[in-house]
Amino acid sequence: MHQIALVGAGRIGAIHAGNVARHPRLKLACIVDASEDAAQSLAAATGAKACSLAEAIADNSVKGAIIASSTDTHLEFSIMAAKSGKAVFCEKPIDLCLEKVSNSASLFADADTAFLLGFNRRFDPNFMKLRSQLQNGAVGKIETIHITSHDPAPPPLSYIPKSGGLFRDMTIHDFDMARWLTGEEFIEVFAQGACLIDKRIEDHGDIDTAKILLKTASGRMVFISNSRRSGYGYDQRIEVFGSEGRIAAGNMYETTVEHWSQGGRNADKPLEFFLERYATAYESEIAHFADILDRSCKPSVTYDDGYKALLIGEAAIRSWKEKSPISISNA
Amino acid sequence: MHQIALVGAGRIGAIHAGNVARHPRLKLACIVDASEDAAQSLAAATGAKACSLAEAIADNSVKGAIIASSTDTHLEFSIMAAKSGKAVFCEKPIDLCLEKVSNSASLFADADTAFLLGFNRRFDPNFMKLRSQLQNGAVGKIETIHITSHDPAPPPLSYIPKSGGLFRDMTIHDFDMARWLTGEEFIEVFAQGACLIDKRIEDHGDIDTAKILLKTASGRMVFISNSRRSGYGYDQRIEVFGSEGRIAAGNMYETTVEHWSQGGRNADKPLEFFLERYATAYESEIAHFADILDRSCKPSVTYDDGYKALLIGEAAIRSWKEKSPISISNA
Amino acid sequence: MHQIALVGAGRIGAIHAGNVARHPRLKLACIVDASEDAAQSLAAATGAKACSLAEAIADNSVKGAIIASSTDTHLEFSIMAAKSGKAVFCEKPIDLCLEKVSNSASLFADADTAFLLGFNRRFDPNFMKLRSQLQNGAVGKIETIHITSHDPAPPPLSYIPKSGGLFRDMTIHDFDMARWLTGEEFIEVFAQGACLIDKRIEDHGDIDTAKILLKTASGRMVFISNSRRSGYGYDQRIEVFGSEGRIAAGNMYETTVEHWSQGGRNADKPLEFFLERYATAYESEIAHFADILDRSCKPSVTYDDGYKALLIGEAAIRSWKEKSPISISNA
Amino acid sequence: MHQIALVGAGRIGAIHAGNVARHPRLKLACIVDASEDAAQSLAAATGAKACSLAEAIADNSVKGAIIASSTDTHLEFSIMAAKSGKAVFCEKPIDLCLEKVSNSASLFADADTAFLLGFNRRFDPNFMKLRSQLQNGAVGKIETIHITSHDPAPPPLSYIPKSGGLFRDMTIHDFDMARWLTGEEFIEVFAQGACLIDKRIEDHGDIDTAKILLKTASGRMVFISNSRRSGYGYDQRIEVFGSEGRIAAGNMYETTVEHWSQGGRNADKPLEFFLERYATAYESEIAHFADILDRSCKPSVTYDDGYKALLIGEAAIRSWKEKSPISISNA
Repeated sequence: MHQIALVGAGRIGAIHAGNVARHPRLKLACIVDASEDAAQSLAAATGAKACSLAEAIADNSVKGAIIASSTDTHLEFSIMAAKSGKAVFCEKPIDLCLEKVSNSASLFADADTAFLLGFNRRFDPNFMKLRSQLQNGAVGKIETIHITSHDPAPPPLSYIPKSGGLFRDMTIHDFDMARWLTGEEFIEVFAQGACLIDKRIEDHGDIDTAKILLKTASGRMVFISNSRRSGYGYDQRIEVFGSEGRIAAGNMYETTVEHWSQGGRNADKPLEFFLERYATAYESEIAHFADILDRSCKPSVTYDDGYKALLIGEAAIRSWKEKSPISISNA
Repeated sequence: MHQIALVGAGRIGAIHAGNVARHPRLKLACIVDASEDAAQSLAAATGAKACSLAEAIADNSVKGAIIASSTDTHLEFSIMAAKSGKAVFCEKPIDLCLEKVSNSASLFADADTAFLLGFNRRFDPNFMKLRSQLQNGAVGKIETIHITSHDPAPPPLSYIPKSGGLFRDMTIHDFDMARWLTGEEFIEVFAQGACLIDKRIEDHGDIDTAKILLKTASGRMVFISNSRRSGYGYDQRIEVFGSEGRIAAGNMYETTVEHWSQGGRNADKPLEFFLERYATAYESEIAHFADILDRSCKPSVTYDDGYKALLIGEAAIRSWKEKSPISISNA
Repeated sequence: MHQIALVGAGRIGAIHAGNVARHPRLKLACIVDASEDAAQSLAAATGAKACSLAEAIADNSVKGAIIASSTDTHLEFSIMAAKSGKAVFCEKPIDLCLEKVSNSASLFADADTAFLLGFNRRFDPNFMKLRSQLQNGAVGKIETIHITSHDPAPPPLSYIPKSGGLFRDMTIHDFDMARWLTGEEFIEVFAQGACLIDKRIEDHGDIDTAKILLKTASGRMVFISNSRRSGYGYDQRIEVFGSEGRIAAGNMYETTVEHWSQGGRNADKPLEFFLERYATAYESEIAHFADILDRSCKPSVTYDDGYKALLIGEAAIRSWKEKSPISISNA
Repeated sequence: MHQIALVGAGRIGAIHAGNVARHPRLKLACIVDASEDAAQSLAAATGAKACSLAEAIADNSVKGAIIASSTDTHLEFSIMAAKSGKAVFCEKPIDLCLEKVSNSASLFADADTAFLLGFNRRFDPNFMKLRSQLQNGAVGKIETIHITSHDPAPPPLSYIPKSGGLFRDMTIHDFDMARWLTGEEFIEVFAQGACLIDKRIEDHGDIDTAKILLKTASGRMVFISNSRRSGYGYDQRIEVFGSEGRIAAGNMYETTVEHWSQGGRNADKPLEFFLERYATAYESEIAHFADILDRSCKPSVTYDDGYKALLIGEAAIRSWKEKSPISISNA
């Protein structure tokens, strides 16, 4: 059993706490949170103990740290945990500042430092099968990809200023999926954005709707659609087009129940949001972290993946602001 | 161009008239109906002339007769047309009386007498593909079949007494599908019936809902579900189970439009009734009749097919009344 | 935390062990099995201890017993557990002998005896939503139901003689679903059976394929289709037809991935078997057992439900053997 | 009966000929083609006569002209027909040269000149229902649209140089759909293009794959995906996202047959190409032309619609070549 410290007892922290508690080879040892009450409460529910960050870091029996605290602390806490010899599972994003991420890259490039980034979609069974089918040549040579990624409803307005903006906060997942599925880096991005849902988001200098085009050196093209509000649950679909056809992964639904009446055929809307849609992905992420702690495999999502996705995000922001396609330097 | 006489200018007659008029190798010469007005009106719309039955029969330039008159005249008019040397396309059923059908069988067994029975479902593209896939071994050895055949709404109550009852009127199509798909005769039927929709149907000694089980000598089993009212359009589905899987044909819809909202995913209900669902089948039936007139093929639905379906119907009625499975003698 | 004893460390026992181990309000205290090795091995994997049945029964700190041993011991072990004051969760069937089940009914009719029967399908989210929608009037008045329940592949031949036969072993689940969904008892059954898959099953006096029709006093009709081999995974579908439409629950799939190519559109086959399809149902069953132990609710599946389903099964066997519909006395 | 002249006896001309011949209020009087053989042959098949363009234009009994000749003659022949007082149904595009189209606009702006442009997709029942639902507020306020429009396979290489290029030849339909569905003009286009399928297309200065983003003054965004080769038939889908949900129209299939086996669930691929997918649309187009000849309605697709779509196409070409978003002046 590997002893695990969880830093951050919020919504996503609670998910990880539950999955660690249920995992047969992991033990949730301690929980850290800026709010001692939050830490105590989650600790009580999961059989862990609440403690300070310093205590958690100093505890050498703790072999893995899950960093699920507020975004601005991800990098600092990851560095502390890594320096104390713990394997790190860090929620995305590493940081909102590209320069800061770049500056610490060398630390996490060290082969002895286990660092797993929480791009949860890579662990979704649908997208995993999509990718494995692609790698088996299901569509021949990959040509283009369409990613639809619409949230059910906008976050609280107070979240907008600290989100880093739509491209760093939301599209970053899609940039990662695009890189993961094509297996090729992007050299150019063009981003259109608009505030169509809530004009107060515009007041914060942000947008709520975006359409983005990416291009690789070999001419492959990826289209990403983002919206902060779908009106029908969480819309998470990917289509890949290639020389021999198309492969796609669709939304998930709570049940298969279908009702036929004079009003037509009616079925469930997509699962409401990420906690529901990616429940299995979060479990698999923790299972992968356990494997990393076992030293049976390397982290499948690296620090560099986080850096590269943020790099595209920075270029997308410039493209949107300058109304022009922007080159991405992956050097 | 083959000259065609249409006998019967009602709803199904009008469908056939339109399809004959549009067919490049057929010419709708004349239309006969007990109501001269009905004949005149349909003739005017299709460029044909109205005439009496005697005139139509006597006209030797007329090579084919479509019998779409009232059920009780199907057999008599078919015999008249056949005796005058015309190819006959007769709407189902041949007659509601098994003995009468049996008595005239020898006339239509004659290889020189072209007789096509209007079991329209055999011409539906979905069921045609289903059968051709079965014959190509899509499910290995056929074991069992489920047929769902529900009307959108009951017919006018006045139709019930002259319908011959649910089994002769409605299930007859399903009995034919069952024979056509299994390619084997049935030796036993068990029929459950009930009046669940409109109790006035029971007053006429009929039922509006039925579940029927058929069995072949080799042990294959077919289930048929009938209802006079679906509440969501015309429900016409067939599932075939075999040693290597399942193949099924589903309903058809007016459009592919799908609406996603807080209320779920909504799409069209099935096409309303047989005129819509089997529009293509009616066209193909007429095209097949043209091929018969060209002598390029034999009728694919024979007088004997009509007799055999009725034979099962008679046994089903006995089964329902006697509450017991009934043997079917195909001798 | 309620201490739980598990009796039976086989395939289904292991499922329950895992679900108890993961449940926050249950503790898997001990595991009993005729094979001490099996008990030891499962105990090691779940943090429980292996012990004898006598020890488990005698341990008053154990408040609940899960009976997942071989079918012929279900009733005896349930009685022992109940008499020692434990809440009982017994796998289906209670027993293969209707008389034995009847003889012990009074013991479990006692309001103080908590007895939950493992009709797992009642806990499937699809069927639960189906039923709750029916109760909300989704299809108006329920008229008829079609249940398709096909296994992926036949069990080992050695299982057949001790299975109780297809109707007691397999259809029993469908009889329970039929009762649960209609909310009305059945007064008649007609069962057709055949050995179409493996003739050696016939040598054991059993069948591998069946079509069953049930009828209630009010005329409602239920059709059940069973096959020991689908050729495409576990086929578990229910359709309900009523005065205002149709509602149906379909199969579940591992992923939503769809592949389009010259060969058509291809998607996953249904989940392979009950362990996969009903994984969530098994979890919910254990959660319900925890609620029963909390005394926060009554068992939703009773001893009488097991008796009634077996009663229909007995009548179905007679119907199949006597080739005649058989009355069911629910007195 | 309105007498119709058909100019152009090629593939699309033959479709129109058949639909005119079958229409109850139209009569196909004469057929003109640069190849007299082609004209004769189609005339023989449809009961029309072959004649010269001059004869057709001079024939005052001919009230409508269908221009389905080669693209470079569309405008000239349309002008000739219009000046002789005939109603004109002109295949798309009006011309590949924007300036020429602009120069003749005044002629067709005249209210007495009936001119219908053959943007067939506007007559597809799926897209018609999509639009009518949008107009009924199905998704609230329209925000963004995704159009997928992929051909099954590239045209003969010889067609490429005279096609006008992908944007004028293929995307022009999608530009029209975008205008028709949003009901708002576009002010900017950004087009990415690549030659991913056949490098010989690049040798002609053209591309075979494109992703295009459009923007309206109010911030609405439309994404269009084009490919000259899908590998699975004709892919024609539209999704519309709005303030209250999503509405989409999908592909059409030859049958509803679904096959389940160890290899998964398999169904038809989309209909092969435009002749199959838009068969109903072509019929409805002709029916609309008949209504125009009856003076019962105005043309629903105008000369200006053809001009506006071409205008976007020109901007798209510039965007692709200059690798920059391009403003569209709708003045």
